[in-house]
Amino acid sequence: MNDFNLKGYLAERKQMVDAALERLFPVPAGLEKSVLEASRYSLFAGGKRLRPILCLAAAEVVGGTPESILPAACALEMIHTYSLIHDDLPAMDNDDFRRGKPTCHKAFGEAIAILAGDALLTEAFGFIAEGQMQKDFPADKLLKVIGIVVKASGYRGMVGGQVIDLESENQAVDVATVEYMHIHKTGALLSASLEVGALLGGGTEEQIAILTRYGQHFGLAFQITDDILDIEGDAALMGKTPGSDIAKNKKTYPVLLGMTRSKEAALAHVKGAMEALSNFDEKADPLRAIAQYLLVRKA
Amino acid sequence: MNDFNLKGYLAERKQMVDAALERLFPVPAGLEKSVLEASRYSLFAGGKRLRPILCLAAAEVVGGTPESILPAACALEMIHTYSLIHDDLPAMDNDDFRRGKPTCHKAFGEAIAILAGDALLTEAFGFIAEGQMQKDFPADKLLKVIGIVVKASGYRGMVGGQVIDLESENQAVDVATVEYMHIHKTGALLSASLEVGALLGGGTEEQIAILTRYGQHFGLAFQITDDILDIEGDAALMGKTPGSDIAKNKKTYPVLLGMTRSKEAALAHVKGAMEALSNFDEKADPLRAIAQYLLVRKA
Repeated sequence: MNDFNLKGYLAERKQMVDAALERLFPVPAGLEKSVLEASRYSLFAGGKRLRPILCLAAAEVVGGTPESILPAACALEMIHTYSLIHDDLPAMDNDDFRRGKPTCHKAFGEAIAILAGDALLTEAFGFIAEGQMQKDFPADKLLKVIGIVVKASGYRGMVGGQVIDLESENQAVDVATVEYMHIHKTGALLSASLEVGALLGGGTEEQIAILTRYGQHFGLAFQITDDILDIEGDAALMGKTPGSDIAKNKKTYPVLLGMTRSKEAALAHVKGAMEALSNFDEKADPLRAIAQYLLVRKA
Repeated sequence: MNDFNLKGYLAERKQMVDAALERLFPVPAGLEKSVLEASRYSLFAGGKRLRPILCLAAAEVVGGTPESILPAACALEMIHTYSLIHDDLPAMDNDDFRRGKPTCHKAFGEAIAILAGDALLTEAFGFIAEGQMQKDFPADKLLKVIGIVVKASGYRGMVGGQVIDLESENQAVDVATVEYMHIHKTGALLSASLEVGALLGGGTEEQIAILTRYGQHFGLAFQITDDILDIEGDAALMGKTPGSDIAKNKKTYPVLLGMTRSKEAALAHVKGAMEALSNFDEKADPLRAIAQYLLVRKA
């Protein structure tokens, strides 16, 4: 475990996901090409590919091969990207920059950005239902994957969390509400990434449940450390200005709990994630290393 | 055929679809309830339920029962509704009213409207992949349905058509471009409705192809008559002011072809739709009546 080269692993996996997205995502053509250009612009804007990497890692823990599940892993990244495009819109968070580049609507206009998000969300389901995966996996398993992704992305997950985020900006909320919001907004798709990977990798029901639990702890630890970075982070590494959550009156963990208790909460969830993996062998080392990295991340 | 009571049929089918949507679409609850309220607001804003009705009718032509495919029919209406919500946004067509009621963003604000559209699109795929249909249909057929719906809704269909619509507003386009736009923007989801119904109803490959062809002609006839109504329609019946396409510099058939040739084109596509049905028995009478109705519609 201590020898695990996380940096090399993440770089190799990011390259694998980037190559798959490049290969599988449609090339802009025809009269409708601007929506694909805008989609690709955001899809290749420097994302860390965390969701697909977690998905591939979960598959490997249970003995699956990453290559065969790449389209599903890409679908998770497309859904994440659509959510960023829509969240950045003027009517939502009104962000002009993301990862140091103009946001989709600044680069392509609002209308095309809305449609690019719509297209990414729609095509994500096609990545699971159409193409190569249909040959490699039984249809009922792919339907199950679609069900998991729908639940994690719609009103029971990401969209629901975004609603709470928006509506919390101008009112007092308690820690329980912030946790509920984060579980939906960020946690749902992260833990779905693990669940999908474990399911497609051939995991038993128990293994899938354990990896999903890892995902739930990971999701909260990720969001709490994200909130902390908004205060303590390095602007150059993050590609955005620290303090933007505070400026927008976003309800974050440090705002509600203070910095010390927020760091304790992040540590507790990283521990919870690690404990979930305790019965897995060294195939779970990437997931262990990724979880522990949250405690030292700088961006 | 001449005796077919289209008005009674459409009313009965609309009621069946409304009841299914009421039953299947989640009830607003929890902290995220506003997004479901906004989704329901637009979902029950008086739509004619044309896409689900066509889907159910196609299933019956090939011997299927409408009840079992209601979730898929509802999914088509949810996708149609999401597209209307996003199309009405200020950054897109900027419409304040639809069917005589304030549009979703006027009633709930832009952010919630964007998210309501996102939720409707996402949950539509859940309607097909989760729940009762999984018990009634083989999984590979449902995956095929999802593939058809993705193709008809994403950049290869509706979203692609919307891009062309937006980008055509301020430039000269020819009739071929307008036809291409309509085939994508409206035609794709309409013909997918027929294809999905025929597939789930148990049609042969040939029957599915024939009913899809009906849908393609129907889609064009529908859009051309829609364009005509924007000039000649009755404001009270339509719930919107005629001339709004022209005011927005939308490229419509009458603008490009003139009224006489537009009416000829509509008639030709209704004939094409009718001819596609020529080998079907009286079970196709609803589809025949719906196609012919396009030539006398007032709203």
